[in-house]
Amino acid sequence: MIRVGIIGYGYWGPGIARNFHGLPGCELSMICDKSPESLRRAKQAHPAVTVTCDANEVLTSPNIDAVAVITPVWTHFELAKTALQNGKHVLVEKPFTSTVAQAEELIELAAQKHLMIMVDHTFLFTGAVKKIRQLIEADALGKLYYYDSTRVNLGLFQHDVNVLWDLAPHDLSIMDHLISAKPDVVIATGQSHLNCHEDVAYLTIYFGNSVIAHINVNWLSPVKVRTTLLGGEKKMLVWNDLEADEKVKVYDKGVDIKGGENVYDLLVSYRSGDMWAPKIEQAEALRVEARYFIDCIEKQETPFNDGAAGLRVVKLLEAAERSLKERGKAISV
Amino acid sequence: MIRVGIIGYGYWGPGIARNFHGLPGCELSMICDKSPESLRRAKQAHPAVTVTCDANEVLTSPNIDAVAVITPVWTHFELAKTALQNGKHVLVEKPFTSTVAQAEELIELAAQKHLMIMVDHTFLFTGAVKKIRQLIEADALGKLYYYDSTRVNLGLFQHDVNVLWDLAPHDLSIMDHLISAKPDVVIATGQSHLNCHEDVAYLTIYFGNSVIAHINVNWLSPVKVRTTLLGGEKKMLVWNDLEADEKVKVYDKGVDIKGGENVYDLLVSYRSGDMWAPKIEQAEALRVEARYFIDCIEKQETPFNDGAAGLRVVKLLEAAERSLKERGKAISV
Amino acid sequence: MIRVGIIGYGYWGPGIARNFHGLPGCELSMICDKSPESLRRAKQAHPAVTVTCDANEVLTSPNIDAVAVITPVWTHFELAKTALQNGKHVLVEKPFTSTVAQAEELIELAAQKHLMIMVDHTFLFTGAVKKIRQLIEADALGKLYYYDSTRVNLGLFQHDVNVLWDLAPHDLSIMDHLISAKPDVVIATGQSHLNCHEDVAYLTIYFGNSVIAHINVNWLSPVKVRTTLLGGEKKMLVWNDLEADEKVKVYDKGVDIKGGENVYDLLVSYRSGDMWAPKIEQAEALRVEARYFIDCIEKQETPFNDGAAGLRVVKLLEAAERSLKERGKAISV
Amino acid sequence: MIRVGIIGYGYWGPGIARNFHGLPGCELSMICDKSPESLRRAKQAHPAVTVTCDANEVLTSPNIDAVAVITPVWTHFELAKTALQNGKHVLVEKPFTSTVAQAEELIELAAQKHLMIMVDHTFLFTGAVKKIRQLIEADALGKLYYYDSTRVNLGLFQHDVNVLWDLAPHDLSIMDHLISAKPDVVIATGQSHLNCHEDVAYLTIYFGNSVIAHINVNWLSPVKVRTTLLGGEKKMLVWNDLEADEKVKVYDKGVDIKGGENVYDLLVSYRSGDMWAPKIEQAEALRVEARYFIDCIEKQETPFNDGAAGLRVVKLLEAAERSLKERGKAISV
Repeated sequence: MIRVGIIGYGYWGPGIARNFHGLPGCELSMICDKSPESLRRAKQAHPAVTVTCDANEVLTSPNIDAVAVITPVWTHFELAKTALQNGKHVLVEKPFTSTVAQAEELIELAAQKHLMIMVDHTFLFTGAVKKIRQLIEADALGKLYYYDSTRVNLGLFQHDVNVLWDLAPHDLSIMDHLISAKPDVVIATGQSHLNCHEDVAYLTIYFGNSVIAHINVNWLSPVKVRTTLLGGEKKMLVWNDLEADEKVKVYDKGVDIKGGENVYDLLVSYRSGDMWAPKIEQAEALRVEARYFIDCIEKQETPFNDGAAGLRVVKLLEAAERSLKERGKAISV
Repeated sequence: MIRVGIIGYGYWGPGIARNFHGLPGCELSMICDKSPESLRRAKQAHPAVTVTCDANEVLTSPNIDAVAVITPVWTHFELAKTALQNGKHVLVEKPFTSTVAQAEELIELAAQKHLMIMVDHTFLFTGAVKKIRQLIEADALGKLYYYDSTRVNLGLFQHDVNVLWDLAPHDLSIMDHLISAKPDVVIATGQSHLNCHEDVAYLTIYFGNSVIAHINVNWLSPVKVRTTLLGGEKKMLVWNDLEADEKVKVYDKGVDIKGGENVYDLLVSYRSGDMWAPKIEQAEALRVEARYFIDCIEKQETPFNDGAAGLRVVKLLEAAERSLKERGKAISV
Repeated sequence: MIRVGIIGYGYWGPGIARNFHGLPGCELSMICDKSPESLRRAKQAHPAVTVTCDANEVLTSPNIDAVAVITPVWTHFELAKTALQNGKHVLVEKPFTSTVAQAEELIELAAQKHLMIMVDHTFLFTGAVKKIRQLIEADALGKLYYYDSTRVNLGLFQHDVNVLWDLAPHDLSIMDHLISAKPDVVIATGQSHLNCHEDVAYLTIYFGNSVIAHINVNWLSPVKVRTTLLGGEKKMLVWNDLEADEKVKVYDKGVDIKGGENVYDLLVSYRSGDMWAPKIEQAEALRVEARYFIDCIEKQETPFNDGAAGLRVVKLLEAAERSLKERGKAISV
Repeated sequence: MIRVGIIGYGYWGPGIARNFHGLPGCELSMICDKSPESLRRAKQAHPAVTVTCDANEVLTSPNIDAVAVITPVWTHFELAKTALQNGKHVLVEKPFTSTVAQAEELIELAAQKHLMIMVDHTFLFTGAVKKIRQLIEADALGKLYYYDSTRVNLGLFQHDVNVLWDLAPHDLSIMDHLISAKPDVVIATGQSHLNCHEDVAYLTIYFGNSVIAHINVNWLSPVKVRTTLLGGEKKMLVWNDLEADEKVKVYDKGVDIKGGENVYDLLVSYRSGDMWAPKIEQAEALRVEARYFIDCIEKQETPFNDGAAGLRVVKLLEAAERSLKERGKAISV
């Protein structure tokens, strides 16, 4: 029985709590939040769980084996570090940390203590991403050409981070999960309109082998868009996460090109065939992830969304942030 | 009666010919193309019009007042220059020229000769763009925040240019028409996958007053997208050119922000109200533009899509091309 | 403080319980279901509420003021009758009863006992239906021409009723709420394919003043559709309940007709103007209805969705059922 | 060389003319229309073709082998009859004739004269219908459950017929082409709002083997809908003719039902699998049909869309019209 404590019961915490609650092999033991109103909601939803406004109660309790850190990003490092120092496994909300240095320190600490770090890259547990990864692993798309994601909506404005740190971690963690090539250079542009934090941002990531990724994040869009295009040599794919039923569509479309002696002899032919929307697993991603967290602890296995995965995302965010501040300067990673 | 000759009867030329044909005050006199097959099609569609494979026949004919240059971009300069030297007004397919220097030389030549240059920025004559411009001029959107366009589809690959020069002129000319601020810096990223020409490209354009524009062009997308988001302080707008009926949607959505003493006191409130899709004029854009071309010649007026407008677009393209070749280096314009 | 007991904790009961729970002025006192598994779920969600498998405990408890009957339709009459006889107000799941005679008996009994009947026509409490009713009351649509609803999806098959009794009550109650004219004749067609219950059905309802309503319900559709068209003399409206944001669209479209001396002189002109999607209230319909139920009891007011409203729907269902069994025979109502 | 004359150059005639023009083995010889304006348009589009306002010129010309009758339905019989009497094959615009008796007389006359009748059921030549028919012939859908079509838009109002005769022939001819079972009973409801012609109508057609068809046609809809659902035991299909690329979607969805001893033991399980959008042939339907018309004449073959097919549609229209006038009375066919 893994006893779990949760620190942070704001926007995302209740979902975490609901999914750990009643999970076989797991006991939701304690919930912590600084806000009395949040604690009241926690108590109402989970009458049997101890609530507290003092994070140290969770971090030092001998009755807790693992701590979920579901707080603003600038607090992740201190909370996760203390949890690890007190011998607790940690699940950390994305993005893992504010800096690469912090992430590296936590990874090292966990290694020393033989503890597990999992970073909450929830999207990796959705049926859509799992299906796309299967398709890529089965080489259904062929050599990958590009990854292009648009993630825009109105709000949610964060006080402590810009739109890059708020929305791009989703895309970066998915990209990291799907693309085996290594990122090479990051270029980010964007603008702030309402305060000092950028509310629109555009990222390009060059990879070593002519794969290119592009991410468009925006807090000021009147319409919500969650669409990712993946182009490959054999097939192309559109993932629209707002579709109820057909989230992933695989197109038997592409280009065949036959070079002649010079560029003007190019013979380009378009291929346009069937479209296919595979059935997507419907299970709640957060429930699957909670199950995986408990299982990895019990079996002493390293999760694929471990600290190293979190670090790779933070590296890209840090590079993107630097690029953004210098109006698109190319930053190597 | 303005007598018009057309050079180039490939993909776009037939539309030009059809729209000049039968236009009151205009006579479609000659069509030129190097390809016998294209000339055969021209003859079938316009039995009464002289066809020729020799551009000089059009350029030097005493019976022609204006020449439409509807050929690959690398030929625009020579053809337009000769036409102007022979005293003919010119309508030049977008993009105007291959270089800024060429555009400037043509503009100067036309001024000396008291001839008119019009650049075929067809989208400026669509009901959608006209309506958006009206809304901006009436300050319906308020202070502009961003312009974000996605223009992707499968093909059409060009032998002589990359996706930037093929698709982005549409967005750049529309942006130039709608945004009164001046572009400041251009950053372009992209990648080629099939030959030496980039088939995906992403542009960011910084303007002086915190307006930011972003353009996503892609020849390798399995789905066709033609969507532009415009965010403003008062209202936000989505233009989906693929919608049959409701191309432009205006959202009474936005953010109100009240700053406190420090950044953590920010009070952000979202505004979410009605959506409104104004009726869009249905007339064929190319017909409206053809009419405007003839009228401007007759009235000796300078069109808004004149050589200077064409030059502004070429300047941005040239800067974007430089940026693209240097992996996103910021280029001032 | 109104003390509420719920009978039936299957598909719809949990939503009812959740919305009465914690409602000011209301106490959720007891939940009854015959299934031990349902009671286990009830207990988990509402630890403080008494659960029982014996409906009579709820129906006769002196500590209960109102009973929500959320059971299969063939049980409504007996349960509601006993509740009323025991002096309790009732909220009855739609459709109200299996027969017109039952509905009339319950209405009379409630009148004698000075008790309230509310029928759970939940859709009447949605933002969309409220907005449409406002538009009609403000005469925004003009004289109504037709009401045409499509409500199709895969499943949910019911053992005890056909698709007509399962899905059409939604449309009939909405239609009853929106259209002031009285229904005149009902014609229903349909077919069963898997067992004796019809799984597709089509209803036409003629009204006195040339309004016509049509309802298409289907349990065997691969795609889910929830779309209602309302045509009026001035404006037309589309309500797509599956749209996240723009559920109701009002079109300034229509037909102007000028009659000449004979039918061949008709001068028809189409009007096509702006489209407008008014902001729709987002509150959960069931919560609003629960609030209204408690308020009506406290203020001793008659709800608009009272037994008489439930009876009108059952009359139409009974007529439609007769018509369906006789392959579309016109049945007067 | 088959020499074709066209009578009627209004809405549909120009498309017919354009597709016969230049078709190998065919010569477009004459175009007739009563309207001088229509003849002017015909002359402009086809300078080499003789135009006339006198139908008899076409009907009696020794230089014409086949006549396309593209006129209002009430004129079809007389024109087609005269054409046949003069030894000419006929292509008749849908619906074939105004009455069953007329259709039967024309069929008999053609048989006597060894001439061909083709009825212009254009949709049967679209890539979408051809693909659906292939799927049905390959038993991909399994036993057919229902056919449900919605064909609504604003206008086009006809002076001489109601919405049933205007729009339903499309669906009836497609249904006739796809469903091998024989129609049994027709029930039609509807209403007129602007003049004496019904502008909305709803048809149900019962077939012998529990297949049911339903057709919703409406001239007063603010939105255009062209959607047909086909439900089968194995698979279900949605044909949305307004989709640019994925017109036909095949769903691996359905219901498996296992009956127990009584109805309450029914075990219903839903099947929900992949969706698949087969590539649809893009050729213009009217061009394919024109080709087929010429080929059938040359090879002396009977087309599948012959007079008998036209008659089957007229029989259903006549029955539906009778049913409509008697408010949904069931009419056997």
